[in-house]
Parts: sequence; structure tokens; C-alpha cells
Amino acid sequence: MPFAGDPLSEPSEPVVGDLLIIGGAEDKLGRRSVLTEFVRRAGGSEARIAVVPTASSLGPEIVDVYAALFTRLGAAEVYGVRPQDRAQASDPAVVSELDRATGIFMTGGNQLKLSTVIAGTPFGDAILDARARGVTVAGTSAGASIQSSHMVAFGPGGATAKQRMTQVAAGLGLLQDCVVDQHFAQRNRYGRLLMIVSQSPQLLGIGVDEDTAAVVTRTPEGTDLMEVVGKGAVTVLDGRDMVTDAHAAREHRPILASGVVLHALPAGSRFDLTTRRLVPTARPVDPTEADELALANRDLGKMARDIAADDASPSALRRRIARRNRGATP
Amino acid sequence: MPFAGDPLSEPSEPVVGDLLIIGGAEDKLGRRSVLTEFVRRAGGSEARIAVVPTASSLGPEIVDVYAALFTRLGAAEVYGVRPQDRAQASDPAVVSELDRATGIFMTGGNQLKLSTVIAGTPFGDAILDARARGVTVAGTSAGASIQSSHMVAFGPGGATAKQRMTQVAAGLGLLQDCVVDQHFAQRNRYGRLLMIVSQSPQLLGIGVDEDTAAVVTRTPEGTDLMEVVGKGAVTVLDGRDMVTDAHAAREHRPILASGVVLHALPAGSRFDLTTRRLVPTARPVDPTEADELALANRDLGKMARDIAADDASPSALRRRIARRNRGATP
Repeated sequence: MPFAGDPLSEPSEPVVGDLLIIGGAEDKLGRRSVLTEFVRRAGGSEARIAVVPTASSLGPEIVDVYAALFTRLGAAEVYGVRPQDRAQASDPAVVSELDRATGIFMTGGNQLKLSTVIAGTPFGDAILDARARGVTVAGTSAGASIQSSHMVAFGPGGATAKQRMTQVAAGLGLLQDCVVDQHFAQRNRYGRLLMIVSQSPQLLGIGVDEDTAAVVTRTPEGTDLMEVVGKGAVTVLDGRDMVTDAHAAREHRPILASGVVLHALPAGSRFDLTTRRLVPTARPVDPTEADELALANRDLGKMARDIAADDASPSALRRRIARRNRGATP
Repeated sequence: MPFAGDPLSEPSEPVVGDLLIIGGAEDKLGRRSVLTEFVRRAGGSEARIAVVPTASSLGPEIVDVYAALFTRLGAAEVYGVRPQDRAQASDPAVVSELDRATGIFMTGGNQLKLSTVIAGTPFGDAILDARARGVTVAGTSAGASIQSSHMVAFGPGGATAKQRMTQVAAGLGLLQDCVVDQHFAQRNRYGRLLMIVSQSPQLLGIGVDEDTAAVVTRTPEGTDLMEVVGKGAVTVLDGRDMVTDAHAAREHRPILASGVVLHALPAGSRFDLTTRRLVPTARPVDPTEADELALANRDLGKMARDIAADDASPSALRRRIARRNRGATP
């Protein structure tokens, strides 16, 4: 939630803004947990949100939808910034629109529009700079894909990784050494993410379900921590130690991908993107179970004292337990 | 291919028959690579194949189809054996029909029909006994699922593992410590296989695509070796070292499954089911590349001799290379 301009959260070290990588089709009418999380991290009632609808074939219409939503969720200001070609994405008047944002939201659409229009332009650089000064950056669907250093451009669904089934283009690089895919479960994109990881095992494959966000925060130690928010899951494919024939598999044929480590992470899961390991989360304790354990512990203590007092014959114990049970049922 | 009754292949130690776990929709009109493999392993021109259509709602019709196919592929005899309830599956006249088979083929249909009618009956035991004496046992779709010790009964498709999305029943146990799913890529069954592995990480999850077979052979050392045949891939999920909340996840919610080792194995891949590791396969060498390498080696040898003869000035080398290249183009 920290951002430039908030004097309370301005530390000596620059605070890196959070990323919200949203798998598309985030709930807009019901619980809106993903969009709520974004507004909260972008500054809540002080949030000034720039909506970037470049990927979409719609312009003002989609900005209006998100403006209504974010305003309803408490944001102070929502406005659209829509570069439509690389000239506009280099226009200082357009680029400077991001200066006052505390949150940037990239809509869905066609991610190749984002890679061709904004990546590597002053506007694209301004998004990276904004994050570096603490601005929260979110994107859904195409706006999720563009965030990784390597971007899935297109390709069919299907569970089996097949040679040349998908294309990779260069993304914004908000998230390095990763490739993000979206609508993951809903469009069955295991195969295409696995194809990319097989050809580039150094990239961590991240597949985000619809109405789900991978929220990435930078810890003070410099670790990128991912937490899952929303209805679905985030699937991680780690190919570091894999064996593959991706250099030799024939076109359209299944690719050998052996030893890929898979993590399916539902809401609440936390994953360290630097070490590529699950971060253990304490589960809530069942109160009934806790009460029973406390009772058993007390009884055991009593029993230990009795044994020490040398009256621990089996029949004495049985009587004691019977008395205790009667006592426990008022 | 070894089977009882073939005096040439009868060793002192009993030979365990091969298993063909077919993911359904095996090609019947084109290359028929899966069915060809079955007939070959069942004895080729001496194969006597018992077709078990119990899972199917069709009876003689489906036997007729496979009879025509297997006969065309060279089998000596094909006949149907169709117990329809546990009484029939305990009838010695029905059970003894398997005595003369060198191959058993279980059709598709409803695998719960197989688990409820034949598993744990004399007929089910006779299939295990047949395999123990060298008979090749194959099954497609439902006939694949029934082979593992733990059987996927039913459940929807989807890439995300969700609590209670599928049911497990007891299978024949031809393959221990495994759970087999079929139509894997085509019906998007990552999620349900992952749910089962999450609840039972000791089970190796094996998902077989359509027109694809996992062929399991027992080595003389007692290892179960799996080789992939056909058009698609076999997906293996190994949850031995996983972290999961499958004991606590709420109904219909995504399950945490972290650290599952994934193997996507296309045709020709070999996998050791005992150690759960890929068996390296030598890839064919590109003949052009090999020729070029041999030529380069010869030239390097010549160059080394020249350098030793102390005429290795850069210009002398360039002239030599030019002469060699002219010579190499007849």
C-alpha cells in the first residue's frame, strides 16, 4: 500500500510497489475481492488510479466501467490513459499522466497490443518507474501477461505441451525470469505454459485462474513474495531441474517435460518467487479440538501425579477416568 | 510378448505379462499404432484375445468391432467374455474362458461397472492370474482406469484441483500404488488427478491421453518400466514430497498442492515406475550433423599436424581452408 506522496510511508530506501497479476474475469458485481485488494493496495480512499485500456478494443467505455468500480470501492480519483501507438506512448503529455497515480490498472484485451505499443517506450518505462517509487501496478488478462519479462503472445489451450503451440514476446519485465499466463484453468492452458517452460526452463511459469490475483510484494530483504487472492488458484511450473527434448521435438508433437515441479496455490497461499518455494502458512486452529487437547493435557498431568503417588493400578485409573468423564458432562 | 503356451519364451521364473493402459479413443482406422502394439505383445499371429466388454453398454457389437480389428492386425482368435454381474463373474464357466487367452482387452464404458462387477471376483482374480503367467492385459478408457489399485470413478474436468471434485474406488490392482486417469488432455483432467494425488500422495498419478498407451513391462530385476506409445502423452504426477492442505480444504475449493513433480511423457519416453524417474533414451543422431562433425574432425587433425610442422601463419591457414573448401565441393 505504500506509495510516493504519502509522507507517512516514505522510507529512506525506495519502496517497490506491489504487483497484482489478475487472471481475467475478476468479479465486478459480487464480492469483488480482487478489485478490492487492488484499491486497498493502491491507497484506499487516497488512491488515484490510472486505467490503461490499450489492450482493449474499447476505450472510454472500459475506463468508465473500472472508474465506476474503483470509485465505488473508495478510490479518490480514477482516470484513463490510452496510448494507441508507439508515438503516443512516447508523447511526454501522455507519459506524465502517470506521475500522479498511486495505482495503475491495465485492462484485458490483446496482450500483443501492449507489447507492440507500450513495451520499451517512455510510457512503458514510466510504468516501471512508477512501481519503483511505490505505485501499485495491476493488470487483468492481457494486462497480467504483459507484466512478466517474457510474455505469452497467443496459442491454443490444451493440457499437452506441443512443439510450437504458442509464441513468446517481450513483456514489460515488472516480474523478471517469469512467464505469466491467465484464464489458466478456464482455458486449459497447462500445455502452452509447459511448452514455454520446456523451451526456457530458466523462466518460472505462472498460470493465474480467472477472478484470482497473484499479488507480488517485495520484502525488505529483496525477496519477491507472491500471495494468492481470489476464487481460483495460481499454478506454478518450475523447470529448473527438468529434462526435456524441447530442442528436438517435432512441430505440433508432444514435448518431453520430465521433473517439472508443480505448485497449485489456492487463495491464501504464499510462495517465494526467489527461492521458488512455498511459504508455510499457519492454518487456523479448530477451537473444539484445542479445548479437547487442553482438557486431555490437564488430565494427563493429573495422571502423572497419581502415578508418581503410586496408585496407578489399571482399575484405579479406570475408576478415575470414569469419574472424570462424569464430571466433564455437566 | 511372452505368454504361457509359447514354449520358446517359457523361462524358469514366471514371466509377468505386459500391461497396456490406453487413454481411450485409440485409432481404429488409420495407423492403429496402439492396437498394433497390443496384438504384437499378445502374441502376434498366435494371439488368442479375450475381449471383456463389461464396462460398455454394448455387448456383442463392441466385441465384433474389436474382433474385426484384432483379426485384421493378425491375431489368431478373438472372442468375447462378458460377465454382467458378480454372480456371472464368479461362474467357473465364465472364468475359465480366460484360460486360453494370450491377451485380454477390456473395452471402454463405465469403470464403476468394472469395479462393481469384476473387481474382487474370481473373474477379476483370473485377470491378475493371467497376467502373472505372462498374458498381456490391455484396457482402454474405463478399461484403463480399472487397472490401477485405486480407480478414478468419475468427476468433472478442469485444470484446478478442487476438494471432492472426484471419487476413488478400488481397481483391479494390476498396477499397485498408482491411480490412472484417461482421456487426460482431451477432457482436461489435470485437476481431478491432482486432487487424488493431493489426498493420497503415496499414489503415483498417471494421466493417459487419447490414442496413447502407457505400456508397463516388468524387468528381470522386478522394476515396472513404463513406455509411451501412440499419438499423445502420458502425464505423471508424483506427490511424494508435496505439501498440501487436502485434509483441511473446504468442499469445492481449490486445494493447495505444492512441490508435485510433473512428468509429461510423449511417445518413446520411458519411465521407471519404481524409482519414479525418467529413463534416458538415446535420441537418433542427425546424419548430416554427424558427417559435418567427422569432416571437421579430419580437418582439425590436419591443422594440428600443420601447426606442429610450424607453417601455421594465419595466411597459410586461410589458404589451406580455401583449398579444403574447394575440394569439399566436387
